[in-house]
Amino acid sequence: MFSHTMMELPLTLTTLHRRMGEVLGHVEVVSRRPDKSFHTTTFGAIAARAEKLARGLLAMGIARGDRVATLMWNHAEHLEAYLGIPLAGAVIHTLNLRLHPDDIAYIANDAADRVLIVDAVLLPLYEKFADKVRFERVIVVGRDYEAFLDAAPPLALPALAESDPLGMCYTSGTTGRPKGVVYSHRSTLLHSLVSALPDSLRLSRSDTLFPVVPMFHVNAWGLPYTAALVGARLAFPGPHLDPVSLLEVMESQHVTIAAGVPTLWLGIREALDKEPARWKLHPGLTMIVGGAAAPERLIRDFDRQGLSLLHAWGMTETSPIGLVSRLPPELDDAPEALRYQLRAKQGVPPPLVEIAIRKDGETPPADGRSSGELLVRAPWVAARYSSNNTPDRWSDDGYFRTGDVAHRDAHGFVQLTDRTADLIKSGGEWIASQELENALMGHPAVREAAVIGLAHPKWSERPLAVVVKKPDAEVTEAELRAYLAEKFIKFWLPDVFVFTDTIPRTSTGKFQKTTLRAQFAGYQWPGTTD
Amino acid sequence: MFSHTMMELPLTLTTLHRRMGEVLGHVEVVSRRPDKSFHTTTFGAIAARAEKLARGLLAMGIARGDRVATLMWNHAEHLEAYLGIPLAGAVIHTLNLRLHPDDIAYIANDAADRVLIVDAVLLPLYEKFADKVRFERVIVVGRDYEAFLDAAPPLALPALAESDPLGMCYTSGTTGRPKGVVYSHRSTLLHSLVSALPDSLRLSRSDTLFPVVPMFHVNAWGLPYTAALVGARLAFPGPHLDPVSLLEVMESQHVTIAAGVPTLWLGIREALDKEPARWKLHPGLTMIVGGAAAPERLIRDFDRQGLSLLHAWGMTETSPIGLVSRLPPELDDAPEALRYQLRAKQGVPPPLVEIAIRKDGETPPADGRSSGELLVRAPWVAARYSSNNTPDRWSDDGYFRTGDVAHRDAHGFVQLTDRTADLIKSGGEWIASQELENALMGHPAVREAAVIGLAHPKWSERPLAVVVKKPDAEVTEAELRAYLAEKFIKFWLPDVFVFTDTIPRTSTGKFQKTTLRAQFAGYQWPGTTD
Repeated sequence: MFSHTMMELPLTLTTLHRRMGEVLGHVEVVSRRPDKSFHTTTFGAIAARAEKLARGLLAMGIARGDRVATLMWNHAEHLEAYLGIPLAGAVIHTLNLRLHPDDIAYIANDAADRVLIVDAVLLPLYEKFADKVRFERVIVVGRDYEAFLDAAPPLALPALAESDPLGMCYTSGTTGRPKGVVYSHRSTLLHSLVSALPDSLRLSRSDTLFPVVPMFHVNAWGLPYTAALVGARLAFPGPHLDPVSLLEVMESQHVTIAAGVPTLWLGIREALDKEPARWKLHPGLTMIVGGAAAPERLIRDFDRQGLSLLHAWGMTETSPIGLVSRLPPELDDAPEALRYQLRAKQGVPPPLVEIAIRKDGETPPADGRSSGELLVRAPWVAARYSSNNTPDRWSDDGYFRTGDVAHRDAHGFVQLTDRTADLIKSGGEWIASQELENALMGHPAVREAAVIGLAHPKWSERPLAVVVKKPDAEVTEAELRAYLAEKFIKFWLPDVFVFTDTIPRTSTGKFQKTTLRAQFAGYQWPGTTD
Repeated sequence: MFSHTMMELPLTLTTLHRRMGEVLGHVEVVSRRPDKSFHTTTFGAIAARAEKLARGLLAMGIARGDRVATLMWNHAEHLEAYLGIPLAGAVIHTLNLRLHPDDIAYIANDAADRVLIVDAVLLPLYEKFADKVRFERVIVVGRDYEAFLDAAPPLALPALAESDPLGMCYTSGTTGRPKGVVYSHRSTLLHSLVSALPDSLRLSRSDTLFPVVPMFHVNAWGLPYTAALVGARLAFPGPHLDPVSLLEVMESQHVTIAAGVPTLWLGIREALDKEPARWKLHPGLTMIVGGAAAPERLIRDFDRQGLSLLHAWGMTETSPIGLVSRLPPELDDAPEALRYQLRAKQGVPPPLVEIAIRKDGETPPADGRSSGELLVRAPWVAARYSSNNTPDRWSDDGYFRTGDVAHRDAHGFVQLTDRTADLIKSGGEWIASQELENALMGHPAVREAAVIGLAHPKWSERPLAVVVKKPDAEVTEAELRAYLAEKFIKFWLPDVFVFTDTIPRTSTGKFQKTTLRAQFAGYQWPGTTD
């Protein structure tokens, strides 16, 4: 058999770690401390400390594949854990500090985490579930972490295989028990390479990246690894996530790319509107938005300020990059309306990602209307869950079934219209609740809007809209209905609009529709009786 | 054992090919025909035709790992072969049409090529070695190639493994028999991803790429695969490689990135100097230069015209990307002299490439002076040759020994100073011939210069410079010696300068020093006698 003559070098963090020390040693990492001061270190120092962390873990008996948990904000020490834990051959398990303490305990036990590394400021949270977990050791950043590093003996790091597990995250599924996904060294390296491409997130040594998305949320979309691979300067917000604190970092650290969920950018927009002259941000600053759809109006608003929202889509199960909404060159001269419409979609798959849209086993036409479930496969997409597995989430031909309803247009742009679970089935037809929500959030008086389907005696289900107005803005139900009527057929228009102060969200910023549905469960439709 | 839960998807051309058809179908490929007309097709059409080519090859019994040769210029049909041959599970072997016909025959026989795909305009070359080879079939583009595609039966393409061989190239080694290197699907996909990164060649859907470097020369530096992966529009020169023809393509096709050897850009500079107002090139057009060092003056000259030379380094054995010379952001405000000095170096390794510089087993200090042999390893670097293997080209710890002498500076930039074989050993010290050549080519009156070591009765070897003046330029030996004396110690200065009309080059554009040394073998040093 005629065979290739290339080197058999595995794709592991080892090469990334060595590069951080040898080629990118002087690249800066800036972290905001709990007291709001800024702490600056370098890739070189972090690489050296990560190696000490790995050696310390090896010395205490952590073995290949063992899980080591973190309960930390975004900062340099968390990056050390991102590197040091996998360099020891172990698996970093980032605990989501926004979950209920009982859920954190469930997840830590389900993963069988042996060690916890925790921020001193998060010890009060840890105390709330400490009696429900059995870590062999708890290392506290701000207390004994430095001593742990200093005491690390000069052990050799293990040689890693690219199929070795590197990290795990749990889905924040609103139904059923949380389920684990385990990333490999190979999947992480490939995901990092594709994320950095010019048509993906376009990350380079010329950037200062500001991951506001938490490092306990799908590994901050993998961005810390991507930055480490390409040598982008990093700025971390620490625990300070209010709009003014974020703007302080973006301004003082000359951030060129930031990443977070739409709610975050909504808050930034309000802060910028309030004090338009106060902030001097990097011209052309790109804000990657994921986790939920970004309303077209938000993209337009930021454009007017010389800032650029870049829409991307992914899930815990997809590492997460699955779609990126960057306009291709042939649309350079397209009408403005079309350009914004496309940028508000989830976009196109980057290299190595393959998608399919299926309804009843068929592929609907790519007409920007006909929808089906979005399926995805890539070397960084889950093939199963590590526990509580649900094989029905995978198609017979090996695609992951996202649970998202989507259509594709003639430009190849995919738009998610709803979760399959959130579709409103009314009179035998489907109503996409998220399309209504996105349209409502495009109204100048609306801050947030959620649409749910409620049981209806005649139509099976009918839509109800829950709306939060912007501060000092006024709008009536009739005005909102007329606004939607310009875009949707009558049948889709919500029967009722309820104004409220806040909409419940999951720990990852998504609307908690199960809570909303429970809240309105006994709703009495006008003109009907029980 | 706790294991990852990711999909096991191989890195093969299959995913790239599917992407070309499904996501990038409308991206254009423009080829210049022998009659100088332009032919435009699309990724979608090429993907469909590549599949037909694969099916045709399968139908004639081509099996996994079989070699299929091409003897072609750069154009769309060659890209079809780049895809179609490996999609059949076979290995594309690009024959170098600049070699002597006997050498082409040797290489085709050494590789055991079963089939040849040849351009009709290259049939006269083929006839020169046809009696020395035994292809089972010769398919001629411009004659029976279209019929071959049309006759392809509807066979299923094989499922490929990422370790399957994809293509092979032979080194153009000036010493010893040519040696084969076999790339794999994995090495090609990884090389393409890293090549496209913003800090590497920065290739995206917004680009029109113009690979002037021949597709029979290290796969045109892998650029056709990189373009196919990211969706860059392609322009191919066909057989027309004179400066004016190249400028016609660059202007009319709005080329944003071109790639070729220094000689090519020297010719372009002369053509631009001759008719400065004639050409309207894309502002900021990047010209990737590799294969030999680009003189600093050439970089400066193009900068003045708003064009940007980007220096990269690699070899047949390295796929080829090994170093890229892009200035990092911390040097944005560095003095102009330093910036040009660094840009004329070979640069820094991109992600996944690891280098070492060693002299007598030690790593010299990174002081920009102390040199040793450059060693390299990456998933796309050869671990052996497919025939005529020379194990001494690999270090005990698995690095490829490039045969290049290099040093590294405090910014991490590597500069190649010579081939180990071309070092001039004089009075117990080393003189780097390429450093002298690069300096000479920075003189305004010098078009080309080569420096060789000749046996000397007292000093063992002494340097002799062979110089080609620019058209209409004049310069004396004394002037050149004085010019070099500003940069080098006296001991390094060539004892003799010989003016000539041309310097012999290898088929890949490098100075043929063996020929020069033979030419001057009996040189009588002034003041010495035999």
